[in-house]
Amino acid sequence: MSFEPDVLQGFVQRYLDTVVTGSAQDVAALYAEDATLEDPVGGGEVHIGRQAIAGFYNNVAGVEVKTELLSFRAGGSEAAFVFAITVGGSMRIEPIEVMTFNADGQITSMRAFWGPADITTL
Amino acid sequence: MSFEPDVLQGFVQRYLDTVVTGSAQDVAALYAEDATLEDPVGGGEVHIGRQAIAGFYNNVAGVEVKTELLSFRAGGSEAAFVFAITVGGSMRIEPIEVMTFNADGQITSMRAFWGPADITTL
Repeated sequence: MSFEPDVLQGFVQRYLDTVVTGSAQDVAALYAEDATLEDPVGGGEVHIGRQAIAGFYNNVAGVEVKTELLSFRAGGSEAAFVFAITVGGSMRIEPIEVMTFNADGQITSMRAFWGPADITTL
Repeated sequence: MSFEPDVLQGFVQRYLDTVVTGSAQDVAALYAEDATLEDPVGGGEVHIGRQAIAGFYNNVAGVEVKTELLSFRAGGSEAAFVFAITVGGSMRIEPIEVMTFNADGQITSMRAFWGPADITTL
């Protein structure tokens, strides 16, 4: 199973837009029912299933965020990308993320690579 | 198992340096015996084991390459990074790669995300 690069980039852009404009449930709805989320990678916690994933996004609900796709690479049914997220106008983080997608375009896994060194205080 | 970010970045820099200065065997020696390599991701071929990996790097042996680490993110025992590789002075590719490492610092998997859109002719 494989998507054209511009289709994959559309999935990623939709995700980044929904993080800004949607609720935690809206973001979780972009994920498959049995999806996994690891953010940050190496942090020791993997969120499994759409409900747990909604809980993860609920942690930043109510905080104004902005997102910007900085760099995008397609890979079959996967995508790797660099993006910036500005949280509450005070903190900017630039993770590298890897996402996998199923045939319906749902996110089946999301892994975010970032650490303290990738945070800028604004 | 987890490495400090600067240790992981050292592993990645050693890899990029060895791609420039070393033989295919030298690069393959940075990998674990049972490592896997997928380059590009979605290309349909996964190279399994150090011997197959040496064969992959042998394909570019004899061609002058330069590498440059552009962006690096640590994640426990993994790393994600953007780098540039210039091949024969005529072509520049900027992949996003994800590498995993074992306790000995050997690469256990490498996955490179890039496609035709990420190639620049110089």
